[in-house]
Amino acid sequence: MNKYTLGMIGLGTMGRNLLLNMADNGYSVTGYDKSQDMLKKLEEDGKAHQLKGYAVLEDFIQSLELPRRIVLLVPAGPIVDSVIQELLPLLDKGDLIIDSGNSHFTDTTRRSLELADRGIHFFGMGISGGEEGARFGPSMMPGGDKAAYEAVKPILEAVSAKVNGDPCVAYIGPGASGHFVKMVHNGIEYSMMQILAETYDLLKNSLGYNNEQIYAVFEKWNNGRLKSFLLEVTRDIFKVKDEKSGGYLIDVIKDQAKSKGTGKWTSQVSMDLQLPIPTINESVSARDLSKFKDLRVSLDKALPHPSVKIDNPEEFIVHLEQALYFAMITSYAQGLHLLTQASIEYKYELNLQEISQIWRGGCIIRAVLLEDIYQAYKKQPQLPHLYSDEGIQQQLKDIIPGTRNVVVTAINHGIAVPCFASALTYYDSLRTANSPLNLTQAQRDFFGAHTFERTDSEGIFHADWNSDNL
Amino acid sequence: MNKYTLGMIGLGTMGRNLLLNMADNGYSVTGYDKSQDMLKKLEEDGKAHQLKGYAVLEDFIQSLELPRRIVLLVPAGPIVDSVIQELLPLLDKGDLIIDSGNSHFTDTTRRSLELADRGIHFFGMGISGGEEGARFGPSMMPGGDKAAYEAVKPILEAVSAKVNGDPCVAYIGPGASGHFVKMVHNGIEYSMMQILAETYDLLKNSLGYNNEQIYAVFEKWNNGRLKSFLLEVTRDIFKVKDEKSGGYLIDVIKDQAKSKGTGKWTSQVSMDLQLPIPTINESVSARDLSKFKDLRVSLDKALPHPSVKIDNPEEFIVHLEQALYFAMITSYAQGLHLLTQASIEYKYELNLQEISQIWRGGCIIRAVLLEDIYQAYKKQPQLPHLYSDEGIQQQLKDIIPGTRNVVVTAINHGIAVPCFASALTYYDSLRTANSPLNLTQAQRDFFGAHTFERTDSEGIFHADWNSDNL
Repeated sequence: MNKYTLGMIGLGTMGRNLLLNMADNGYSVTGYDKSQDMLKKLEEDGKAHQLKGYAVLEDFIQSLELPRRIVLLVPAGPIVDSVIQELLPLLDKGDLIIDSGNSHFTDTTRRSLELADRGIHFFGMGISGGEEGARFGPSMMPGGDKAAYEAVKPILEAVSAKVNGDPCVAYIGPGASGHFVKMVHNGIEYSMMQILAETYDLLKNSLGYNNEQIYAVFEKWNNGRLKSFLLEVTRDIFKVKDEKSGGYLIDVIKDQAKSKGTGKWTSQVSMDLQLPIPTINESVSARDLSKFKDLRVSLDKALPHPSVKIDNPEEFIVHLEQALYFAMITSYAQGLHLLTQASIEYKYELNLQEISQIWRGGCIIRAVLLEDIYQAYKKQPQLPHLYSDEGIQQQLKDIIPGTRNVVVTAINHGIAVPCFASALTYYDSLRTANSPLNLTQAQRDFFGAHTFERTDSEGIFHADWNSDNL
Repeated sequence: MNKYTLGMIGLGTMGRNLLLNMADNGYSVTGYDKSQDMLKKLEEDGKAHQLKGYAVLEDFIQSLELPRRIVLLVPAGPIVDSVIQELLPLLDKGDLIIDSGNSHFTDTTRRSLELADRGIHFFGMGISGGEEGARFGPSMMPGGDKAAYEAVKPILEAVSAKVNGDPCVAYIGPGASGHFVKMVHNGIEYSMMQILAETYDLLKNSLGYNNEQIYAVFEKWNNGRLKSFLLEVTRDIFKVKDEKSGGYLIDVIKDQAKSKGTGKWTSQVSMDLQLPIPTINESVSARDLSKFKDLRVSLDKALPHPSVKIDNPEEFIVHLEQALYFAMITSYAQGLHLLTQASIEYKYELNLQEISQIWRGGCIIRAVLLEDIYQAYKKQPQLPHLYSDEGIQQQLKDIIPGTRNVVVTAINHGIAVPCFASALTYYDSLRTANSPLNLTQAQRDFFGAHTFERTDSEGIFHADWNSDNL
């Protein structure tokens, strides 16, 4: 009996599509799922390749060539642990398990260590690109033992998205680095989605544009430097009609956003690392705030709305494109800054040039801007911050004045722009050699004797702030 | 031998001062510390009461009346656990341990359960007021077994701060609720400190005021509705001279703020509870951003600074007072909203009327505004949000236009006001019945099949966004 090169556990849409993608690329692969429905779907979708899956785990495991390559695409959390427990008695030393769900990186660290003790290689691999990406070319972020990576490298490179012929997959680093980088990818995604929502709000409520006009604006922008998967998706949403209401679908969708936690994790970890990503934080808050619908409706009635008109719509549209571009740069900048710090803290040895390279295609945050970012890190691998790159600085000089105008207009109009405003205050905080937080340290020393440092001499100082002779 | 009513473990400044405060109030108390220095200091400071401490834990424990009342004032973290381990063999069932440090509430939950198994009562009690507060009247937030509270209630009420004769201590709720409420108190404190720093930045760099002028502004404001401990401290900082430089001390303090983690915890927990407190988050980020001094200095040189003048300084000062008041209201509103949610999630049965009452005196966030907040919750104990109170709404109507002007001015001047801007975008988010986050759900369904809800019918929907017939 011929053995299969790779096996997939979990044949939901993502797992099934990734398996079909591998089969398309000539790999001999199979899948396992407890659900007969899922096995049937695999058979139907994989007719051309005569793809059949297993319903019995032992048979599935025996069908794989040694050392085994097993990819998990099951929901993150305790299910991953229980699948691993079921697998363990059936595996041999040297086998490789790749968890491709959105597991929290601390779970991946724990599992890597536990499985290393048993002689099993374990990878956390983030996959981005949604259903379409999995089927026809995702971006993939695998992390773990580098030697083990060689056993799957050709397969992953074959199925991944390509940009200028380069595969959108690369070995990320040791330990849980793959899942960490995917988590930050998702944090950037949250921020990008929120700035698009704020842009929509301004187009609709400050400029009074209808859905056709909004479509046209996004269509035009997507031919320029803003070109990106998320802008494309956003644009296309505005042409989708709804049978039931007879209008546009966007207009009957509830304005309460859900989330699965990866954005929240990014924000929480950034706080542990003391590496601020305030714009990503605001995007997490914005989704949570949207859920307080009853409160919002009642406050909307009770509190006044400012009413201001835009004098020069043409100029405002130009500035809005600049603000969106600025907030995109800042979303990436914060995510990449977090990766820089995590790489030091967790010894991930991340290569930001390579990471921005593999994000250029296949994933949800792919964008032409990533080409500039890739070039920035190529020129200067130890770039302290994306704002430190000269090319980016040239662009910032151009777009900041327009961005200020957009935020000012939104604030005067009472349109909530938490991410635009936060991106700009973040920029101004970093662009300021002398911050007012000397006051914070003075306050802390005043009431808590927490001490302070001085600008004119080394050491730790404490003052008697209440003393009469001061 | 007469037994003592209460014993303190940890005779650093806070522990020693609280013990002296108890002795002042006529209680027979003693302390334990491993450090001879600390014991000596207790003896010196407590001469009037002939206060002597113990260096041997067994002797200290034997000196206490049954059931024992033991307060820990040791650094939060593993030290609390090791002190508890040392204590356990020496205690009797029914004894009460009160951890008064800034422990993470999840540690307090764990310790409460572990000690309950051994028949020991365990309280987490937040104390606020700094060294002065501990000595002459702090605000205290004890949580745990309600029956056990009776054993310390008279002592805590005697030593606490008083407002209109009411003690600034009350039983908070079961479990770790005391430490949870103290943590949120500190989150509010972070936000208040940051809005004061932003105010200072605007006074100094937008208006060009010197330290004497800044003192005068704060002095004037502190006679009105802004009156608060933190504003008093801030005001007083601006009159403190520095011998070494010959100028003002504030001008030679490094602008890099440190933190001990309670603000960060508040933000992280709020994300788990999906209860957004974006302004507190921004204050945590602002401290962390301040540490990137080298990056800030280099970007300051590379990127342009806007230069705009304020036309009408008198009007701007009026608006700035309004903005500061608005951001204060919002800081409390976010913290109290978080408490509302935590009370549901953790079954803390929090009484926000009582909590705002005990915050009116003794603690770092005491302010005359808390009287209004107390009245709001007194009138409507189930108030969904502080903005929902009619009295607060009246004030918001007055101060929002000026606040918009301040944020707009700061943005035009390139002065970073992350908390002011975030408070305003938070307000505008909550004041908007229809948010643009229908787009977010549309995007999530488009690329991830995450489904959406409709405004016109119940249920969960998924659209084929790419279909040609749409």
